[in-house]
Amino acid sequence: MSIVRAAALQLQVSPDKMENFNRLRQHLDSLAKGNVDLVILPEMFNCPYQTSLFPDYAEEEGGACWQKLSSLAAQYKMYLVAGSMPERDPENKIYNTSYVFDRQGRQIGKHRKVHLFDIEIEGGQQFRESDTLSPGNKITVFDTEFGTMGICICYDLRFPELARLMVDQGAKIIIVPGAFNMTTGPAHWEILFRTRSVDNQVFMVGAAPARDAEAGYTSWGHTIMVGPWGNVLQQMDEREGCIIQDLDLAEVAKVRRELPLLAQRRSDLYQLTSK
Amino acid sequence: MSIVRAAALQLQVSPDKMENFNRLRQHLDSLAKGNVDLVILPEMFNCPYQTSLFPDYAEEEGGACWQKLSSLAAQYKMYLVAGSMPERDPENKIYNTSYVFDRQGRQIGKHRKVHLFDIEIEGGQQFRESDTLSPGNKITVFDTEFGTMGICICYDLRFPELARLMVDQGAKIIIVPGAFNMTTGPAHWEILFRTRSVDNQVFMVGAAPARDAEAGYTSWGHTIMVGPWGNVLQQMDEREGCIIQDLDLAEVAKVRRELPLLAQRRSDLYQLTSK
Repeated sequence: MSIVRAAALQLQVSPDKMENFNRLRQHLDSLAKGNVDLVILPEMFNCPYQTSLFPDYAEEEGGACWQKLSSLAAQYKMYLVAGSMPERDPENKIYNTSYVFDRQGRQIGKHRKVHLFDIEIEGGQQFRESDTLSPGNKITVFDTEFGTMGICICYDLRFPELARLMVDQGAKIIIVPGAFNMTTGPAHWEILFRTRSVDNQVFMVGAAPARDAEAGYTSWGHTIMVGPWGNVLQQMDEREGCIIQDLDLAEVAKVRRELPLLAQRRSDLYQLTSK
Repeated sequence: MSIVRAAALQLQVSPDKMENFNRLRQHLDSLAKGNVDLVILPEMFNCPYQTSLFPDYAEEEGGACWQKLSSLAAQYKMYLVAGSMPERDPENKIYNTSYVFDRQGRQIGKHRKVHLFDIEIEGGQQFRESDTLSPGNKITVFDTEFGTMGICICYDLRFPELARLMVDQGAKIIIVPGAFNMTTGPAHWEILFRTRSVDNQVFMVGAAPARDAEAGYTSWGHTIMVGPWGNVLQQMDEREGCIIQDLDLAEVAKVRRELPLLAQRRSDLYQLTSK
């Protein structure tokens, strides 16, 4: 049971939630024939990536979209990392949240993006998630029949501390629903996935929305899977679609045996701790 | 004074120390005409990269080679990051050590490699520095008229904690004398320099020995300079030579303003500390 058949979906995002779910269901129908174990959706797969819309699209945990996702996981008997969507908490705060369901549709993980995307690049991308979102306060891993996996969302990937701490908690696959843009995508998307893998000797999976040139925020796409040696296994272009890949967790053990980076850290000189 | 003219030398390493110094002097003669401020030499630039030879070539701090390097820095009025060489301490322990000299030939920095290179890749590179070397116990930065710079040696680069802590101590350029090999070089040399830059928004400079196909350990070469956006500024092939590049530290400030990663770290959730 060391091999996980993983599928990452690069979905086109419509402003119509039902349309997004119909599209998702079509993909799952075809993945079910391929014995896929784990499906990963993009960041904000059912809400346009636009700060002003996050409050309008937000639902509570257990709400209508959550229930649909749980049912789909159970129906198709797949682990489902449900990209992310805006979540409203009882205090009316909004988060960028990823729910994870097991093959029975039970929630086994939940990550709220902890690093909000606030940038202002001269002549390039400008964005302020913190205009409408609150940050999460937790580093997230979850357990499956294959072992432990970690999850973070998009901008979280830029902080090496997070991947390191997920790995310290046992993650052998790190999943990142993300939506880089036309400035940061070509510059940093691939290298960030590759390096978190090189440094931590884990599989990395990134799932992005397909590009919509009409949207306010243009997604770089390039949904990707990387092996524990930092090698790109598969990477898409900007169009809607899907990649399927068998991830053999025995490779993680092999790379860590040959190049024992994690064990060779000098914890007598430095230490990374979570609180 | 925000622009540092830096030169990284990819030197051929001879078993004859004097020959290495003669070659170095020829390079410095030509660099002096170009108003170079800072010269960086490769890891083990005056000793074949072979564990059994490190004790034979080792000298104490202040020994004959150290004196030659100090004199060269003063003569050419350049900062000199003297790659690395085997150092013997009073207790007869051997280290992989980099000395840094200012324009007057005074030692202003000293780094002993803290992560020893012990790897065993199936069908690839095998090496055990710890057979003859002891590890250093210090993270190293040094001050110049241009600002603070950090230094680590080769395998140290694989540990993201080290670059992060050097940056926390003010480093805007991180210098890495290194000698990756024909297994790890093509796989990870460039990406490690680029990512430490992307994550920490600093200039990265790596200087490697030129390739000698007859040597016991085959250097990948590829001496490199990378900008604070993760962009490769210059990179060599495997042959002896030199790259010269103006590093404008104002770019570090610009990138950090546009994408304020360091300030956006969640120190309430995780913390990296040195001891």
